[in-house]
Amino acid sequence: MDKQELVYGTRAVIEAARSGRQVEKVFLQAGVTNDLMKELVQTLKDYSIPFSWVPAEKLNRLTSKNHQGAVAFLSAIQYASLQPIIDHAYSEGRVPFLLLLDRITDVRNFGAVARTCECADLDAIVMEDKGNAPVTSDAIKTSAGALHHLPVCRVKSLKQTMKELRDNGIQVVACTEKAADDLYSADLSGPTALLLGSEEDGISAPLLKDADRLVKIPMKGKIESLNVSVAAGIAIYEVVRQKMAEGRKNPASGKAAHK
Amino acid sequence: MDKQELVYGTRAVIEAARSGRQVEKVFLQAGVTNDLMKELVQTLKDYSIPFSWVPAEKLNRLTSKNHQGAVAFLSAIQYASLQPIIDHAYSEGRVPFLLLLDRITDVRNFGAVARTCECADLDAIVMEDKGNAPVTSDAIKTSAGALHHLPVCRVKSLKQTMKELRDNGIQVVACTEKAADDLYSADLSGPTALLLGSEEDGISAPLLKDADRLVKIPMKGKIESLNVSVAAGIAIYEVVRQKMAEGRKNPASGKAAHK
Repeated sequence: MDKQELVYGTRAVIEAARSGRQVEKVFLQAGVTNDLMKELVQTLKDYSIPFSWVPAEKLNRLTSKNHQGAVAFLSAIQYASLQPIIDHAYSEGRVPFLLLLDRITDVRNFGAVARTCECADLDAIVMEDKGNAPVTSDAIKTSAGALHHLPVCRVKSLKQTMKELRDNGIQVVACTEKAADDLYSADLSGPTALLLGSEEDGISAPLLKDADRLVKIPMKGKIESLNVSVAAGIAIYEVVRQKMAEGRKNPASGKAAHK
Repeated sequence: MDKQELVYGTRAVIEAARSGRQVEKVFLQAGVTNDLMKELVQTLKDYSIPFSWVPAEKLNRLTSKNHQGAVAFLSAIQYASLQPIIDHAYSEGRVPFLLLLDRITDVRNFGAVARTCECADLDAIVMEDKGNAPVTSDAIKTSAGALHHLPVCRVKSLKQTMKELRDNGIQVVACTEKAADDLYSADLSGPTALLLGSEEDGISAPLLKDADRLVKIPMKGKIESLNVSVAAGIAIYEVVRQKMAEGRKNPASGKAAHK
């Protein structure tokens, strides 16, 4: 979390939230219940900013300044809204291509995934506002700067987002070792959102249940688990391969056109 | 380099080399020229163990014991010989599948690459005995233990190895952004050794010149460079995909059979 910009003080955090500065998350001191704190909590709820109650010691470790029980981490990037990105892709005659991340907590893995997404020209990464790696300066560094170019969307519920994607004609393809079919058996040349899950336990059950299709990367050894950034690269580039093959087969369709 | 096993003392290092213990490399103190040191240097040459002359201060930082001007790093794994691995694959009716690494110096990248190789059931990783990441306990950890299963071959010259591979009917396919053709245009279903280069400057010119084929992973964004472990995953799994497609097309050929 080093090098991330901090805002401290109850009033200052309220102002940061209201000013449109993108706030990654807020730590509030457990037990503080004054009126300004109540106003801050309401503001955070209004702006859908994640917050958690922590002991005073945690805040004291973050800053030696007078934090009044509130410390906010500002985002190192500006988050984007998903629907305009999808609309923009369709309006340009392109096939939307998204990556949904379910609880990728390792900052380096997140950065490496973002780097691959930028190289493959995905439209955006989408993840929930809680339970994912914070987009720190370390993530940006590991992404080789990709996070300055690639839109990242933070949503309240991936489950809800998956419904919206379907309404936009975008299939959600979950990459999971629990799949019966392999990655190469799926048609990924149309509008597609790949879904990848956490390093520890994969994609959560409710999301798996709602995916349009489950596919697995074939495992032929004893280890049977790839690093998540490598798995993302393999799945993302299978989409790229299929789009290129589609473009060669049917060059006038515009389906394989790229930005 | 932490947690790697050290052997210090001129006589002890000679014994380690002669006993068949695999020695990663040896640091010798510049200026020490006694008879035992001469015997040690000759032994290291006889056993093709890399060594370099360093100031006394470097050795003193490695160990507080009496090192007599010689400190050896023992390998965390046993290295394998390449030819028996190729012979074994052919004798089982399998298509050999190898990865050649040219100066991959980052231990975590090397570990991640090894993990992918094990998952895709490659026959071995081959690299030169100098200029690559040492196979430390950190590499083994990042590989998720893959380095305990996957043979790693250390050779004097990749250029020479590439000749030998050709004599064994194995094509060398270099993954390089300098290629005109993309990865997907190459037939990778036969005996193949993929060649990947350093994080900084790719594959060295003499090796590029000798490769049978150059291919590139298509880049569609602004960054134009993938993490080397992600690039390796994409190329390795394109081979897996082509072998699976070959196996479906021609199930009796045995070409796509796996261990």
